[in-house]
Parts: sequence; structure tokens; C-alpha cells
Amino acid sequence: MSQAYAARRNLLRERFAATGNAAALVSRPANVRYLTGAAPRGAALLLGPDEDVLFCVGPPSGEPEEGRLTEDLRVTVLPLLGGDAAVAAADQAQGGKADALAVEEHHLTVARHRAIGSVAPRLRLSDLGNAVEAQRLVKDEEEIACLRIAAEIADQALGELLESILVGRTERHLALELERRLVDHGADGPAFPTSVATGPHSGRSRHRPTDRRVEEGDFLSVCLGANYRGYRCEIGRTFVIGTTPADWQIELYDLVFAAQRAGREALLPGAAYREVDRAARQVLDSAGYAEALLPWTGHGVGLEIDEDPQLAPAAMGKLDACVPVTVEPGVHLPGRGGVRIDDTLVVRPEADGGPELLTITTKELLAL
Amino acid sequence: MSQAYAARRNLLRERFAATGNAAALVSRPANVRYLTGAAPRGAALLLGPDEDVLFCVGPPSGEPEEGRLTEDLRVTVLPLLGGDAAVAAADQAQGGKADALAVEEHHLTVARHRAIGSVAPRLRLSDLGNAVEAQRLVKDEEEIACLRIAAEIADQALGELLESILVGRTERHLALELERRLVDHGADGPAFPTSVATGPHSGRSRHRPTDRRVEEGDFLSVCLGANYRGYRCEIGRTFVIGTTPADWQIELYDLVFAAQRAGREALLPGAAYREVDRAARQVLDSAGYAEALLPWTGHGVGLEIDEDPQLAPAAMGKLDACVPVTVEPGVHLPGRGGVRIDDTLVVRPEADGGPELLTITTKELLAL
Repeated sequence: MSQAYAARRNLLRERFAATGNAAALVSRPANVRYLTGAAPRGAALLLGPDEDVLFCVGPPSGEPEEGRLTEDLRVTVLPLLGGDAAVAAADQAQGGKADALAVEEHHLTVARHRAIGSVAPRLRLSDLGNAVEAQRLVKDEEEIACLRIAAEIADQALGELLESILVGRTERHLALELERRLVDHGADGPAFPTSVATGPHSGRSRHRPTDRRVEEGDFLSVCLGANYRGYRCEIGRTFVIGTTPADWQIELYDLVFAAQRAGREALLPGAAYREVDRAARQVLDSAGYAEALLPWTGHGVGLEIDEDPQLAPAAMGKLDACVPVTVEPGVHLPGRGGVRIDDTLVVRPEADGGPELLTITTKELLAL
Repeated sequence: MSQAYAARRNLLRERFAATGNAAALVSRPANVRYLTGAAPRGAALLLGPDEDVLFCVGPPSGEPEEGRLTEDLRVTVLPLLGGDAAVAAADQAQGGKADALAVEEHHLTVARHRAIGSVAPRLRLSDLGNAVEAQRLVKDEEEIACLRIAAEIADQALGELLESILVGRTERHLALELERRLVDHGADGPAFPTSVATGPHSGRSRHRPTDRRVEEGDFLSVCLGANYRGYRCEIGRTFVIGTTPADWQIELYDLVFAAQRAGREALLPGAAYREVDRAARQVLDSAGYAEALLPWTGHGVGLEIDEDPQLAPAAMGKLDACVPVTVEPGVHLPGRGGVRIDDTLVVRPEADGGPELLTITTKELLAL
């Protein structure tokens, strides 16, 4: 695996060298982890013309949530108090032969940027921009394997919940139980705060669990994901509590299901992000739910739960093979509730069977 | 309560007006919450010469974890995609009569700062610095009441854990159970990731729970806290598993206890931060544990778990009354484990009985 990290760093180095920069400083945690295997708190990675050095504030802990650092990298540990990894890295860059340093202006604060300028006044600072994020878009098979395991864990946790008694339990407790089960099945932790939404809350995106209890006749929307070796997936399902769903519930469910299927079927290499969004969105639009929709119907996943690409009406760009995304249209009707169905899939060419579904829990409307 | 928020904003306004700034932009989430009651994701607060406006990206959710927005404030909601609250606020400031805007340079990224400059080129941007953080240092009685409840919740969760069977359970499971109990007792969530450290891990600060199981003869260190209405406390205790602690365990425990008591007793209005640190530290230093110590022995708590002041050897400043801090010396011996004892207290004058202990779980060495 350490070869993969070195290859990623070399690819990045070629790119910023081509723009005239001798050195780059990567500080955004997910980007640091992508290039080194770990993201110790406050760490910054200096990519030099010859050597790369990771600057850490205090010893890197090596706990699973932060990852395991690749062994082929020099590490400089700064004192816990008063240490700033980015500033120390810039100091070293200036001491070396670099005259220019590309930094992540979308991550560094104005104050830290100024501190870098003070400690290394001879360095010309430029913007690395989203170079690392762009490199993270297409995943290698090792990354996809982690996402596959993360999805399997989420499926297991959700499956166990469905077998338990739900009526009378609060959203908050169900969410905590799901998170415990994720860890039971080998997750490093939840990929994001687990969402459990009952009755009038159901169908809301990223609903924060409350003390509302599950009641007979409710819609129940659940959205969860596992973090496995840093890689994060997402699954969302909506169920009905009790034996007989009401007619409006069946109709709304079928509609959101059709929208979600249309989105999934649009996932092919070369498809424009906005086309995928439109495929899902127009099903709901034409049924009169335009107002009840979110501005996106899906997004990339990986080392962060919300990565590029955004599947949205104004998004620019086209899907590549091996890009993992969610497809998650939903409708929320204020006061009544709603439906959300959310899968994580990997874009694959049609010759390989089309999109690979990672989250395989059934999407039938189950009455629990 | 809305009067309290308006009073805080007015005090801040007086301060930055005195430095020649007509308007200020607050973007750091805990600072926004301190001044408005809530911190919706991505929100930014514009403090104008006359009116204050909170800019949110998407509707503020009103869920307890984000707080409840005070009602006397104008709110402008931006579209979820492409909306940037800080940029919109700067645009409005320029449209008003402001010619200068103080921003939080320690929170804004270089990229957002530049976007503000582009949208509002006539505004002179300056640095608000840590003005809001400084104002947050001394707590009012309403804030202390929240911290008191947070501490009570943490004490309850810890007390219940002590009554359960521990041998054979993993650190990870004990941590998850503690977090569930915090929520059971009314917390909005954990104040920080709960730390459970057994055997050789015990005594490590901020140890991330692993799959190691509790064994007979282990030291068990637990550190947890509740988030109650945004206010966060911290309690840490170390126990022995089994009936007879070893001699080295008793000795080490007594030593850390003596250090922690010395730190607590040094908490008085007017005491220098470094004096409090030294009171605790020298007990451990003189027993030969200088190398095993962290660079701090305590820190402020409030809307964040790690606030000013820092109780550390090089810290500058003196304690005021009504400043809540932790006192948390510990010793970790690599390969063997160690002891950490951590309380949250509020600095009070001697005439009022001295420091107010919020976390009241016993500090006797319990054998569980």
C-alpha cells in the first residue's frame, strides 16, 4: 500500500511542478490522509522537489479513525503546545531550495497563511486549489474495496435493526443503536451522524434524531453509513410501521422509488452530472413535487461523505468510471412526512454490467 | 434569554467600534452561537452599526445540537447550493453605510477572504481577532447553569457504568454505552469523543477506544462529557479492575490525586494560569514523572470543550471569577498504563467558598 501513496504524491508533484511550483503544502485532513494513509490532527504534508515530510503536532496516534501512516515518509513531530505544522513546513521549504510554495487556500485560514508568509518571506505563495480533491475523484480498486466493506457493514447494521421492535422507541435511541451496530460489525465509526426520522420528520434529508417515538402508521426514514479505513458510504431507506401502508404512502413511495431507479440507471461513464440529477428529479417534478426537493439528488463519497461530484441541476462535468456516488432523491411534505431512498454505487461501463450497487438492502416498501 | 444575546452583541459592537470598524463579521461557529443562540451550519453573523443579520445557508434547522436562534434577530436564508453566508454578509455590509469590516481571520479561509474582497471591493477588511473568544472567557450564571447540568449528566452516566459488569467488554463498547447514557439523561450529545482506556492504554489523554477488552488487574481510565444546550463539561476518572490494586497502582494513583488536588486548590481569582499548572505539575515532577506529562494540566470549557485559558507552563494571564476550567493531570507509563483524574470546576472567590466543583463523582480509588 505504501507504493500507492508514493504514486499519488508523485502524480500530484508532476501536476504542480508543471505549474511552476517547486513545493506544495497539503493541509486539508482528507487530502493529507489520501497522500499518506493517515490524518493526524493538525498535520500538514510538505511535498518537496525531492523529499516529502509530514509535520505533526504531537506524536501521530495510529488509531484506526486517523488511519495508519505509510512507512516510507519522513515525519517531523512538533511540540503539542504552540506547534503549527503548516508554518513549520513552510519554514523547512524555505530552508531547502524551494522559492515557491503552493498552499490549499480553501483550507488555510487567513491567519495561518499570514504566519506562513512571516516565517518564510522569501517563498512566493500560490494556490494549490482543488488539485488533491480532483485527484481523489476516481477511486482505485483498493479504495473501492474499502467502500464495499463499508457498505456491507451498513447493510448488516440496518438489517439487524429491521428485526427488532421499533414502536415506542425514540429516533435518538434508534440512531445510537445503529451506530453501535456499525462498530460491532467492524466500522471505525459512523461515516456521518446517523439520521432516524419518524412520522412528520420522515423524508427529511440529514434530519437530526429527536425524542419523538416511533408510532403505528408512521413512515420511518433511516440514513446511515460506516467509516471503514477512512472510506465512507451511505444508505437510506424508508419503511412503514404497522401492517397496512396508507394509499398516499404507497403512492409516494413508488414515486420516489421510480425517481431513484431513474437516477441509478443514468449512472454511466460520460453521463453529465446534471443529466443524472435530471433523470431522478424529473420523475418527482412531473408529479408536482418540485418544491419539496433538495437542490441535489446525489454526491460523491470517499474519504469524506460529501465529495465531488455534486449531482445537481447546475453541476458541470461528466462521470468517469470508478467514481462512487450516492443517488438519493426524496420528498418531504411538511407536517406529513415523506420518503427518501439512498444508495451508494460505483460508476462502471455498460460492458462491465453498468453501475455497481454497494448498498444491497432491499428497496421494497417493508411494513415493520 | 434573547436580551442576553443582544447584550453580548452590543458589548462586542462597542469594542470593535472603538477600533474604528463600523461592522464586523463573525463566522466561527461557537462565536456565532454565543451571539445568537444557534450555529446553523455555514452561518455568518453581520454586526452592523444599527442592525444585526444572521446569514444562513438553507433554513436553520432548530435541532438541539445547533441551538435555538434568538428571536430578535433578522435572518437571511441563502440557497443551499452555491450560497456563502460570509460573502453575502459582506455584500450587504458594503450596500449599507459601512466602509470597514472586521472579520475573523483565524477562522476564514484565504479563499473565502478573497471572495469577500471581490464582492465588496470598497470595504476595508481588518481583523476582529479573538474578540468574541475573549468575551466568552467569563461565563454568566445562565451559562454556568448549563455547565452544571452537563456535569450532572456526565456524573449520572459514569455512575451507571460503574454498577455494570466491565471485565471482558471492549473499550469501544464501553465508550458507546457511556455516550448512549449521556443522551438518556438529557444531553444533546457527547461533549467530545468519549475516551475509555484499559491496561497499557490507561492514563493516556484523549485515547481513542480500541477493541482491547477490560481484564482483571487493569487500570481503567474513562473520560467523558455531556453537551447540554451547547455547553460542554469534562470528567475523567481512573479505576482498578478486580479486588486488590497492586502497590504501584496505589502509589501512582495517590500521586496523581495529590497533583490534581493541588491544581484544584490553586484555582482562585487572580491566580496566574501558569501558577495553577505549576501547582499540579510540580507534584508529579518531583516524583520523577516530568517526561510522562502533557504540556498542559487543564483548560477552559464552555461552548467548546477546549477553550481559553490553557493551564500550561508558558500560558500568560490570570484567572477571573466565573471562568470554568478543567484540572486534569495524569501520568502514562508506556507499556504499563497510568492514571488520569479530571474535573470541571468554576473559579469562585474564597469568600464564596472557593472553586465550585461541577463533576462530583468520587475520586477515591475504586476497585470495580
